[in-house]
Amino acid sequence: MAHFVDARTRVLQEESTKAVLSNCSDPKADLAAERARATFDVGELLHYLNGGREKVERKAHFAELISRTEWGNKSERYFQTREEQYVHGLKVAFGIWDFMKEKRLGISDGRVLRSLVNAPGGLELHIGMFIPSLISHANPEQQAKWLPKAQSLEIIGTYAQTELGHGTFVRGLETTATYDSDRQEFIVHSPTLTSTKWWPGGLGKTATHIILMARLFTKGKDYGPHAFIMQIRSLEDHKPLTGITIGDIGPKFGFNGVDNGFLRLEYVRIPREAMLMRFAKITPEGDYVPPPPANAKASYATMMYVRSTIVQDAGKFLSMAVTIATRYTSVRRQTTSSKGQRETQVLDYQSVAGSLLPLLATAYALHFTGKVMMQMYTDFERSRDRGDFSNLPELHAFSSGLKAMCTTITSEGIEKSRLLCGGHGYSRLSGLPDMYTSYVQNSTWEGDNNVMFLQTGRYLIKSLLGAMTGKTLSGYAKYLENAQFEMKERCNVSTEVQWLDPAAQLAAFRNRAARLCVDAAEQLKQESGGNPVFEGEPWDNSNVIVIKLAVAHSQYVIYKNFMDSLQGIRSRGELQPNTVRALADLQGLFGLTVLEREVGDMLESGYLSARQVKLLRAQQRALVKAVRPNAVPLVDAFGFLDYELSSALGRSDGDVYRGLLEMAQASPLNRTEEGPGWKAVLEAQMKKPGSRSRL
Amino acid sequence: MAHFVDARTRVLQEESTKAVLSNCSDPKADLAAERARATFDVGELLHYLNGGREKVERKAHFAELISRTEWGNKSERYFQTREEQYVHGLKVAFGIWDFMKEKRLGISDGRVLRSLVNAPGGLELHIGMFIPSLISHANPEQQAKWLPKAQSLEIIGTYAQTELGHGTFVRGLETTATYDSDRQEFIVHSPTLTSTKWWPGGLGKTATHIILMARLFTKGKDYGPHAFIMQIRSLEDHKPLTGITIGDIGPKFGFNGVDNGFLRLEYVRIPREAMLMRFAKITPEGDYVPPPPANAKASYATMMYVRSTIVQDAGKFLSMAVTIATRYTSVRRQTTSSKGQRETQVLDYQSVAGSLLPLLATAYALHFTGKVMMQMYTDFERSRDRGDFSNLPELHAFSSGLKAMCTTITSEGIEKSRLLCGGHGYSRLSGLPDMYTSYVQNSTWEGDNNVMFLQTGRYLIKSLLGAMTGKTLSGYAKYLENAQFEMKERCNVSTEVQWLDPAAQLAAFRNRAARLCVDAAEQLKQESGGNPVFEGEPWDNSNVIVIKLAVAHSQYVIYKNFMDSLQGIRSRGELQPNTVRALADLQGLFGLTVLEREVGDMLESGYLSARQVKLLRAQQRALVKAVRPNAVPLVDAFGFLDYELSSALGRSDGDVYRGLLEMAQASPLNRTEEGPGWKAVLEAQMKKPGSRSRL
Repeated sequence: MAHFVDARTRVLQEESTKAVLSNCSDPKADLAAERARATFDVGELLHYLNGGREKVERKAHFAELISRTEWGNKSERYFQTREEQYVHGLKVAFGIWDFMKEKRLGISDGRVLRSLVNAPGGLELHIGMFIPSLISHANPEQQAKWLPKAQSLEIIGTYAQTELGHGTFVRGLETTATYDSDRQEFIVHSPTLTSTKWWPGGLGKTATHIILMARLFTKGKDYGPHAFIMQIRSLEDHKPLTGITIGDIGPKFGFNGVDNGFLRLEYVRIPREAMLMRFAKITPEGDYVPPPPANAKASYATMMYVRSTIVQDAGKFLSMAVTIATRYTSVRRQTTSSKGQRETQVLDYQSVAGSLLPLLATAYALHFTGKVMMQMYTDFERSRDRGDFSNLPELHAFSSGLKAMCTTITSEGIEKSRLLCGGHGYSRLSGLPDMYTSYVQNSTWEGDNNVMFLQTGRYLIKSLLGAMTGKTLSGYAKYLENAQFEMKERCNVSTEVQWLDPAAQLAAFRNRAARLCVDAAEQLKQESGGNPVFEGEPWDNSNVIVIKLAVAHSQYVIYKNFMDSLQGIRSRGELQPNTVRALADLQGLFGLTVLEREVGDMLESGYLSARQVKLLRAQQRALVKAVRPNAVPLVDAFGFLDYELSSALGRSDGDVYRGLLEMAQASPLNRTEEGPGWKAVLEAQMKKPGSRSRL
Repeated sequence: MAHFVDARTRVLQEESTKAVLSNCSDPKADLAAERARATFDVGELLHYLNGGREKVERKAHFAELISRTEWGNKSERYFQTREEQYVHGLKVAFGIWDFMKEKRLGISDGRVLRSLVNAPGGLELHIGMFIPSLISHANPEQQAKWLPKAQSLEIIGTYAQTELGHGTFVRGLETTATYDSDRQEFIVHSPTLTSTKWWPGGLGKTATHIILMARLFTKGKDYGPHAFIMQIRSLEDHKPLTGITIGDIGPKFGFNGVDNGFLRLEYVRIPREAMLMRFAKITPEGDYVPPPPANAKASYATMMYVRSTIVQDAGKFLSMAVTIATRYTSVRRQTTSSKGQRETQVLDYQSVAGSLLPLLATAYALHFTGKVMMQMYTDFERSRDRGDFSNLPELHAFSSGLKAMCTTITSEGIEKSRLLCGGHGYSRLSGLPDMYTSYVQNSTWEGDNNVMFLQTGRYLIKSLLGAMTGKTLSGYAKYLENAQFEMKERCNVSTEVQWLDPAAQLAAFRNRAARLCVDAAEQLKQESGGNPVFEGEPWDNSNVIVIKLAVAHSQYVIYKNFMDSLQGIRSRGELQPNTVRALADLQGLFGLTVLEREVGDMLESGYLSARQVKLLRAQQRALVKAVRPNAVPLVDAFGFLDYELSSALGRSDGDVYRGLLEMAQASPLNRTEEGPGWKAVLEAQMKKPGSRSRL
């Protein structure tokens, strides 16, 4: 675009430029200044949060290596068509597979790699569900037959459970597998429109095999959903086999690299051995052999594992969003009250800091809860392997509520972070739109969040009722033993600073949950006309308060985990005092922000007085100010690489505007100067002078 | 897929199919049953809400006609690439233009057509900003020169104001227009990276001309932002002119048919007459002539108009989302407590009804507020034309807060509706993801919502301070005259049913807002160390409570509008009693739901007692039940056509699963049986038997 500019023009412009430059912003300098304000050693916290220096360096090394591969290159990320995304997703999966083989890497490295590239594709469910289901549900002969092929990618599988008409409620599935003892085969069939399999990832255009969940009928009797393995596409030309209709279900809010698919079966015959028979079995004669009772419990394990990882990941995604928003609002300057002054950093507005810094604190809270969750799962696995399932109910209740709570918090938090980035947050180049649309599926996937909360609520009410008849409670529900006492309890805070005491905060969380549990039990009794009924109308009519209870309990749990973790760090001396202090501010800010939103309940119950609420609010505001100088250092400590964030606004060097401008160049509309509309539409339309009358 | 199926197979399957069919859902019958439950005349309400039977029929007629055109066909809507969307958006704009010409339609029909097709493209700002700005800011000679070309589409314009570094704060713009009196030209230039124009719709690849907002420098003095008209692309080959760099800014969360663009200017010369000189002027010698003082006010008019239409549209978009979610949750059946029973309609779960039906009530509330808002704007226009600007401050304060409130409610409401649709809500075929991503920009566009709330809050606090010195207040802020009295007021509700009284609800809304106004003024005084300062740190440090005040006031306004509108309908006898009763339930449900969320403030202030909160909650629950039978009829009355909704889940015949399956066929991944990944990746990878070692 260079063109001749005469000297006079340059001189005239010079003056105007000077006037503009005197107040214009310098994002890189702003971010550097923020970093200089840290009151703690960022490197120490970075290593602590990420499992040590070695892991931090290993991740950076991997990122460096894969960013140079074709499949690891992210420059086209925001510009791909659906087909390109899909094909790229496959390349990524094979790329990672080969990379791991070449470097002889293990499962946890694989997790790091997939998270770094973050391009889910048609092989997600092959890795995440098909292989694990074979391991858990196939008998040894079946494993010997199928696992080698699956693990060498000779076949690609997926897990076909949900149908057009059925998601959460597995018992309602309508696909049938009818046993024909004469031929020792099953007929698998889609008898209704609603029985069409719908949603399985990779089913659309990738998978050659599926694990099919279908209702088993034999000798005229319905034994409910069972798992079968079957081939759906030719290994020669990838076309669907006879009697099988498959396709992609179309674009989604996010996850468009994945070919979620549909499947209809028309009287397809599969051998008896297609049924996965580690637990339940069918004899050649068609007699059904039910699974041994203990195994019903064992099959929960996979579900628990998946939920635990969802809880663990929630903190990570919220941290990513908060990193982007914190860096950007630190360098974004907008509006000044007095002429000639530099504009204000957006993060210095109370309304912005008051929204964003509590999210930062929440990201830390979720980090610690994620750790506790995974530890609890590991403990469960260990006792399960000894045949001890005693901690399953608690794990189940705990993980359901936390899954719902953490995914709700993170979904909303990503979107809040995006909105705090103003107009530029609306650009996909900010990274936040894609983060939201891909993350928010977690609210529905693996159990709708309302259903999850209800499970936790049911457990809590049952625990309370048990405690009232003298049963001892364990784990996180222990406090319900004292519910009657809590009903009379009053908060004893009388100064602003007393609200800083973690014990005071924890007591408020606990009291709220305990009282809600009593209220919920009371309402359920009323709806049941006496003894509480945990199903049907009485239960459905109590949903709202039960969900509220589960939310309150989960908040209590998350706060308690933060508090206990920090206490552990302190007592083990794992971090320097300044670092602990910075974390303690976050813990306080998290606690008081949540409590502030819920004061209505506590005023209503009489636990808090209006004066105590005012003190709480003042202390919360004070903590927002206390955290402010550490905002950028605290997000730096999460340790996300620019490669991971793929965000013009989240750049670690703060050069956000250059980031936007540079990334935009690759927009497909910019392939030609005149754009794709000129020849297609504009030229013909605009060159009709006079032919078009004025509107 | 038909293949030979023997008789034995059919017989065996027959039995299983029967078992499945006994409980499977029949969505069309479900929706018909819902409609039969209506307690009022849906047709009457439909016509009332939509301005009469004739308008309803006219819209249907238009939809019928345009759905058969190439540009009006929506079957590819969810499958287009960015380029296809962009080109299609242009075709739509020209298509509508020609259609209007052919049928001799006026502006309001144009609005209906654009809303029906709902495919914003590169001409949005030509119509919405370029032409209106010429009319409002160009002098008669300039209008004579430019308007005919713009109105016959010989040129296409956009409005280039925002920059990489500046959105809301117009005074901070960095693009300069430096006057050179020797040549009687302006030099327009982008002196910094942050001065790059960024975001204007149509700027990327469509517009040939722009209205440029740039800081006017003459004789070494900076006169701040002014408007200039200039050409940026050749009319011959559509290439950018010398010194001008233009391009598309890349993909966004939504609105991807629009080529939002960037622009850099390098010492570009434009004639003196390029400055739009209806108000401010520059003489050939370079002397600046400021605009007459009254016109500063006049220029607010466009802004007020745009905000008013945003408020008006909020109700429409929320209604669309609620229509989809209500129909779908009425036909979606999921989970049964007892075997053999049909599954429950999802809308019958308390947690679903308790979320969705208040949203339905809110959609109605926003409808009435939209009407009031437009009426207020029309009244303003009328008095403005008489030179009377006395109602401008109220209109400004009112529209700012409502813009922020209504767009927040609608954004969140669309996303809540989507989540209530469970897994299928995640599919773009549901229509909800696209509705959310295109709507949510309203929270940022035309003034960030926080900034908007702060403007309303400032007006309210100033009103309160005025009233305290004896000034009379008018309009919606009138209640602040009694703020001191409100501080001592207590709610007098003592039974559940008394909460149904609109006066009791209104009093609670009013009391909350009044008390918050007093609190906010108090805090601002404290932060200011005496007399309240409405800028700088004292103001910034009061943001949170001021925003809270503006929210409370806006909620009061929306409730009052609902109440007054219904009162008017009643007193004018416009609707039958049964219809009025259905609307009154909605009014009550809206009011109590909002109040229930805010009881914390009212308990804290002492306005409500814990007992009154319990009564409120019980009455709110009762209203959810009361509205339930009318849910589908009430969304039918909005009158959205299937063509408008473009939603598999919102189909008016309830055949949602067929809708999903049929729409999905057009997915680009389904163009071939084997999909685009087979030849590109899979075949080569999968046919390496043995070559790939197991992981």
